[in-house]
Amino acid sequence: MENKRIVMASRPAGWVTESNFRIETVPVSAPKDGEVLVKIHWLSLDPYMRGRMNDTKSYAAKQEIDAVMVGGTVGEVVESKHPKFRVGDQVSGMFGWQQYGLSDGTGLNKIDASRAPMSAFLGVLGMPGVTAWVGLLDICQPKEGETVVVSAASGAVGSVVGQIAKLKGARAVGIAGGKAKCDYVVNELGFDACIDYKAGRLNDDLRAAAPKGIDCCFENVGGEILDAVLKQMNAFSRIAVCGLISQYNATEAYGVKTFQSILTNRIKVQGFIVSDRMELWAKALPELIGWVASGKIKYRETVANGLESAPKAFIGLLKGENFGKQLVKLV
Amino acid sequence: MENKRIVMASRPAGWVTESNFRIETVPVSAPKDGEVLVKIHWLSLDPYMRGRMNDTKSYAAKQEIDAVMVGGTVGEVVESKHPKFRVGDQVSGMFGWQQYGLSDGTGLNKIDASRAPMSAFLGVLGMPGVTAWVGLLDICQPKEGETVVVSAASGAVGSVVGQIAKLKGARAVGIAGGKAKCDYVVNELGFDACIDYKAGRLNDDLRAAAPKGIDCCFENVGGEILDAVLKQMNAFSRIAVCGLISQYNATEAYGVKTFQSILTNRIKVQGFIVSDRMELWAKALPELIGWVASGKIKYRETVANGLESAPKAFIGLLKGENFGKQLVKLV
Repeated sequence: MENKRIVMASRPAGWVTESNFRIETVPVSAPKDGEVLVKIHWLSLDPYMRGRMNDTKSYAAKQEIDAVMVGGTVGEVVESKHPKFRVGDQVSGMFGWQQYGLSDGTGLNKIDASRAPMSAFLGVLGMPGVTAWVGLLDICQPKEGETVVVSAASGAVGSVVGQIAKLKGARAVGIAGGKAKCDYVVNELGFDACIDYKAGRLNDDLRAAAPKGIDCCFENVGGEILDAVLKQMNAFSRIAVCGLISQYNATEAYGVKTFQSILTNRIKVQGFIVSDRMELWAKALPELIGWVASGKIKYRETVANGLESAPKAFIGLLKGENFGKQLVKLV
Repeated sequence: MENKRIVMASRPAGWVTESNFRIETVPVSAPKDGEVLVKIHWLSLDPYMRGRMNDTKSYAAKQEIDAVMVGGTVGEVVESKHPKFRVGDQVSGMFGWQQYGLSDGTGLNKIDASRAPMSAFLGVLGMPGVTAWVGLLDICQPKEGETVVVSAASGAVGSVVGQIAKLKGARAVGIAGGKAKCDYVVNELGFDACIDYKAGRLNDDLRAAAPKGIDCCFENVGGEILDAVLKQMNAFSRIAVCGLISQYNATEAYGVKTFQSILTNRIKVQGFIVSDRMELWAKALPELIGWVASGKIKYRETVANGLESAPKAFIGLLKGENFGKQLVKLV
């Protein structure tokens, strides 16, 4: 039995290219006592992976050259010598960009695919969904009637942020790239407004969409979008800094010109990464499952087929070409 | 009896000049029932006044043209028809840039000048001292052994920040302009290190002074200094944004290039202004009085003589020409 896997061949300088990856075929190892072999059905592609590819200090261990690319996965147990897992169990774990994964059980969790499809446990019911929950409800803490702005609003995280904001009685304003994404965010997800940052009227459109100013910003993008939002933040507002995707491939950092708004408006800004807040998963996940099962939270997936398609799909994700959660279907 | 006062004649565009002010002489009004007349001994000059002079939204009402310049003062009651104040009482209040102030008692507080000179109640025992206390102890919350960096370290606020940090067992690193200020900060105030930002080696000097990285930043300056500090902040560090004096006279805003550190290091950034936290004065002030009376906290004052000297002294303050708390002596 063979395992195809994708390793990082070289570190990118600026934009990632397909040449930064290499596909390999290796034999599948049989599990030893206490181990379990998982056949991976779905691979998650996420912006954080770009940070791991750099040779710089970040919030997690960097991706090593020639090692399998990091990544969240869901799949099915096909062989088990582990007392807690049985053949046929559906599980999530960080196996990375490959077809099979071997585990001693650490970080491997059974998922209950009876209430949502397996792939949802990589998106709305996985790291992105819990990230949205933590950043919005634990950091931003929007009150009823307040205005929440979220960038990358049609993405795996942003789409959940706005829908939770609505459930909590706040006004949800999205920022996304292009009319199709904005239409989806407003018409299907139920945001109050969405601004197409590609239309070139960011400041004016934001003022119109948030006439009472902005109380909470869930930041996924950074750069000019962050500057535009900072200009219209209210006194005592909150910013959860979840991602800065506009900067990940930049060779020169964007200079944030409206930092002074943090002082003038006594804004609280908090950078966060969901894995620091594992204690909140047990609270967030059941809520998210309930909202998804009852149709209160909707989601969309963009699916690339086959492991070989992962590098191209990942580059597309960084350019905003995906629509909702970007997945790779392996089975 | 005459009252000399300084009004704002015009709003500055960029750097403040003396032509933005005008001196006037008007009669002193006698207090009516419920009012008290104060002869002002000392006027406080503070960076926040620059923000008030702009025609833009800020954390406080803007300074109106032709109105007496805003400012904290201490003085002595010379006439009273107010039941709570007697002739001879020493008081602090926001009378602004003038020789006499009339008050109905709102915002007027008696000071106990038996434990420190009257002028100290405009500095280490007034708004700047309490600002240091709130930003450091309520927002940054340094733990023993952590490293605290404070910019404008020889100033009225920064000098207190570093000394409290030392009292709490933290490493105190100052940033100041020039060797004389740095020598004072280390040799007289007891900071562990001080970096002269004018020496042109900010990044290297900061790395040497904070070898374990920075856990708390008390920001008074902004611009390049903030960028240098952000680069060396530790995971889960805290920044209290108290002031951005480098930006107050800038006609083009500096772009903060290291904003991404807030995400990577999950930094909490909090803009604050001490008047939002009036409930903490009652806790902060007795502690500060105790530390000053016992010699644990030292301070220095730069005194300009006579009301006419206020505009020039204020411009000098914005340029960093003062050394410690900038005051104007009126009596």
